[in-house]
Amino acid sequence: MSQAPWVRIAEAAAHVGTDVVLKGWLANRRGSGKVQFLHLRDGSGFMQCVMGVADVDEATFERAKHLGAEAAVIVEGPLKADERAPYCKMELTVKKLTVVSESHEYPIQKKGKGGGDEHDPGFLMDHRHLWMRDRRQWLILRVRATIIKAIRDYLDDHGFLLVDSPIFTGNACEGTTTLFSTDWFDGSKAYLSQSGQLYQEATALAFGKSYCFGPTFRAEKSKTRRHLNEFWMVEPEAAFMDVYQDMDLAEDFLCYLVQTSLKKHKAELLEILPTNAEEKAWMEQHVALLEGVQKPFPRISYDEAVKQIEAIRAEQKDEEHKKLLDIHWGMDFGSPHETELTKRYDKPIMVHGFPAAVKAFYMKKDPNRPEVALGFDVLAPEGYGEIVGGGQREDNLELLNKEIARHELNPESFLWYLDLRKWGSCPHAGFGLGVERTVAWICGLHHVRETIPFARTLERLWP
Amino acid sequence: MSQAPWVRIAEAAAHVGTDVVLKGWLANRRGSGKVQFLHLRDGSGFMQCVMGVADVDEATFERAKHLGAEAAVIVEGPLKADERAPYCKMELTVKKLTVVSESHEYPIQKKGKGGGDEHDPGFLMDHRHLWMRDRRQWLILRVRATIIKAIRDYLDDHGFLLVDSPIFTGNACEGTTTLFSTDWFDGSKAYLSQSGQLYQEATALAFGKSYCFGPTFRAEKSKTRRHLNEFWMVEPEAAFMDVYQDMDLAEDFLCYLVQTSLKKHKAELLEILPTNAEEKAWMEQHVALLEGVQKPFPRISYDEAVKQIEAIRAEQKDEEHKKLLDIHWGMDFGSPHETELTKRYDKPIMVHGFPAAVKAFYMKKDPNRPEVALGFDVLAPEGYGEIVGGGQREDNLELLNKEIARHELNPESFLWYLDLRKWGSCPHAGFGLGVERTVAWICGLHHVRETIPFARTLERLWP
Repeated sequence: MSQAPWVRIAEAAAHVGTDVVLKGWLANRRGSGKVQFLHLRDGSGFMQCVMGVADVDEATFERAKHLGAEAAVIVEGPLKADERAPYCKMELTVKKLTVVSESHEYPIQKKGKGGGDEHDPGFLMDHRHLWMRDRRQWLILRVRATIIKAIRDYLDDHGFLLVDSPIFTGNACEGTTTLFSTDWFDGSKAYLSQSGQLYQEATALAFGKSYCFGPTFRAEKSKTRRHLNEFWMVEPEAAFMDVYQDMDLAEDFLCYLVQTSLKKHKAELLEILPTNAEEKAWMEQHVALLEGVQKPFPRISYDEAVKQIEAIRAEQKDEEHKKLLDIHWGMDFGSPHETELTKRYDKPIMVHGFPAAVKAFYMKKDPNRPEVALGFDVLAPEGYGEIVGGGQREDNLELLNKEIARHELNPESFLWYLDLRKWGSCPHAGFGLGVERTVAWICGLHHVRETIPFARTLERLWP
Repeated sequence: MSQAPWVRIAEAAAHVGTDVVLKGWLANRRGSGKVQFLHLRDGSGFMQCVMGVADVDEATFERAKHLGAEAAVIVEGPLKADERAPYCKMELTVKKLTVVSESHEYPIQKKGKGGGDEHDPGFLMDHRHLWMRDRRQWLILRVRATIIKAIRDYLDDHGFLLVDSPIFTGNACEGTTTLFSTDWFDGSKAYLSQSGQLYQEATALAFGKSYCFGPTFRAEKSKTRRHLNEFWMVEPEAAFMDVYQDMDLAEDFLCYLVQTSLKKHKAELLEILPTNAEEKAWMEQHVALLEGVQKPFPRISYDEAVKQIEAIRAEQKDEEHKKLLDIHWGMDFGSPHETELTKRYDKPIMVHGFPAAVKAFYMKKDPNRPEVALGFDVLAPEGYGEIVGGGQREDNLELLNKEIARHELNPESFLWYLDLRKWGSCPHAGFGLGVERTVAWICGLHHVRETIPFARTLERLWP
C-alpha cells in the first residue's frame, strides 16, 4: 500500500520535495514516445504531471498514451517546484498511475486555447454538467463562490443576521405578471418570491439588522444577456437607517466584494479568462478599473443624471440612437440611458432621488419634495448596468395606506406588512444586490448565463 | 446635538462607564411614580434602562410611564456594569428619551414569563412577523443563523466549494407525487427542487468537493411536528470519497455544528428557552447531552439495528405500541423504530447498510452484498429522528441504467446524469442535512415551525 499522502492541488505547495498522490481527471494530454504530459485537474486546481518512458513500466506508459480527456486517474510521484510549469509552478513526475475510469469521445473538444470555444453556446449550455469542468467556467464559478462568501462575511461581520425570507407567498402583492405560481393544498396559489424585502422589513424590526440571501424567481419573457428566470439575490435591511446611510453601506459593501474577489483571483482573471490577445488587453484594463473601485463613488441625483443624458443625447449623430436616449424628468432609465451615463465614469455610480412615480409603492418620499423617492440605484461601469437597487421604506402607516390605494393594490394582502407600521415603526432602509450581475461585472463576462451553475432562461430547464 | 455614540447592545460592553445612545423598542416596562424600568430590545440584545424621576424633566417621565409595548425609542445616558441587572449585566440610566413611534395595544401579550405563551400556536404563527421579536423566538432564529454560518464555515474550511444546484428542473426525475410545479414558458412544467444532490454529483466531478445550500420543497400532505413544505438543506458531495469516509465527514461536521452552537449560545439556551422549572431541568439535561456530542458516534448496521428493535419490541407490554414496532429485515424504519432505537443512546447514531430496496435508485450497492445499499442515516437522540441521510452513489453506468429500468424511471430524464458515468466516473458520496430539524434538535424544540422565520405548512402561507 502506498505511503504517499493524497493531496489536493490547491494545497500541494506545502508538499514540494515529497512524493504525493493526486486524484483527478485528465484535462489534456500531449506527448511523444518518450514522455507524456498529463494535464490533471482535481477540482481544486490544475497541474502538469510528467511521465517519462523510463519512469514506469511499458504497459503503464502505453496506457497513459491512450488516455482520453476526462479519464479519472490516480497518479503518484515526487512533486517539484518549477517556475516554468504551467498552471501552478509545480510538476509531478508520475511513477504510478491508476486508471479509475476510461473516457472515450468526450463531447467537449478542446481544440481552441480557451477550451470548448469552438462549440456554440447552445451546445455548451446543453452540456453544462460537463462544460463547468472547463478551466474558464471552473474559474467563473469559483469567483462566484468567493463573491457569495464575501457577501456573507461582510454582512455577518457588520452585525446583520441572516433571517431567511420565505420563497412561497400566499399573495401576489404587486400583481401576477412576472410571478411563477404553484398550486397550494387548499386550492389556492402559492407564488414564488421575487424579492424577500417585505419580509426583511419585519426581520429588521426584530433583529435590528438582517439579511436574506436566496434564489428569486421572475417569470419575465426577456431574452437578454442580463436576464435569468432564477437568480440569487442578497437583501440587507436595517432599522434606524436612512437612505444616505444605506448608500454608504452599499458603497462600502461593493468595494469589499470587488477587492476581495481581486485579492483571491486577480492573477486567474488575467490569465485564464481571456482567449486571445484582444481579450487579454481588455481584461488588463478591466482589472485596473476594478482596482479603482474604492470609496467614494460618484453620487448623482436623478435631476443631474437627466441633464447629463440630455447633453450626451445632444452630441449623438445617429438618429436611432438619439431616439433611444430620449429623456425627460419623470421617465425611468432604460439600458441605453444607463450605458451612456456610466460610460462617463470609471467607477460604479450611485443615482438617487428618482421620481416617486416610477418606483415601488413602499418607497419613502422625500419630505421636502414628495415627487421624489428616497431610493437609489448603483450602476456598474462598462455597461454592466444596475447591480444594486435600494432605499428607505415608507414607515408612516397613513402614507403607506395611501400608496397602496393609489397603486390599486389589495390592502388585505398587506395586513401583516402594515402591522410593522402600527407597532414599532421606525426609519428603515435596505437594498438588493443580484449575484449573477455582480459576477458578470467582476469577471467581465458578456452574458449572465455563465455566472450561475445551471442557468434557467426562457428556453432552458436542462440540464 | 448629542455627542454620545449610538451602540448596539451586543457591543455595548466596550462602552461601560460612558454615555451611549441606544435605539430600539420597548420589550417590557414596569415601574412606579419614582422610577421606570424600560426593558429595551434593539435586535442585537436586551437591556434594562432605568429612568428615575429626577433624571429627566416631568414631561419625559410622564411620557415614559405611558409607553406601550413595542414603542420605538431612542434613549441616551450613562452605561454601567451591574451583576444583578437582567439580560446583560449592564444597565443604562436614561437621561434623554426620544419616542420615534408610539405603540398601542400590541397584539402579543406578555403576561407569561416566556412571553406570548398564553396565546395558541395558530395565533402566534399568524403574527409571526411580530412574534419573532419575542425573546425566545429571537434566540431560536439567532441559533439558526449560527448553525447556518457554522455549516458554511465548516465546508468552506474543508475545501468544499459552494456550487448552487438549480431550483427549477425540467423533469420530475423520481415521480411527481411530492413535487410542486409551475408552468414554464413553452407550455411544459418546471418542478421545484426536492434535493440538489443529482446536480452536486456533476459539480463534485468538476470541483472535487462541492455543496449546495438552499431552500427545498416537498408537496407532502404531512401535518407533523417534523414537516415543513419549504425547508433549507445543505448537501455536500465529494469525488473519490466512499461511504465510510462520508460517515466520518458527517460525524465531524455534526460535532462542529453542535459545539459551535453551544460555544455561542449555551447560556442563552439554558436561560431564555425554558418557561418553567420543569423545562429548565429538561434543558439542563439536554445541554449536557449536546456537550457529549463528540466523536465517535455509535455506528450500527441495519442488521444490528433490526435485532435491537426486535429486542425492544419483545419487552413492550402495550400491544398497540408493539404493533408499531413490528420489524423484519427489508423494512424501512418509521418514526417509532427510530425513536425507540435512539432512546438507547445519548449521542447521535449512524445506521448504515439499509436494504437497497428501500433506498433511492442512485445508491451504490455493497459489492459483497448487493441487497445492501452503501448508505447511512444519522439519527439524533431524544426522539429528534433522522437529521442526515447520505451515502455513496452508483458510479457504474451499466448498473445505474439497470436501476433506472428497475424503478421504471424514464432514462430520457437522466441523460445528463448518466453522462457523469461516461466521462470521469469515480467513486463519490455525500449527504444531506436538514437545517430545521437540526435547529429543533439543538434548541430542544417540539415543533419545527419555530425553527424557520416564516414557516410554510399544509395550512400556512401567511404571513
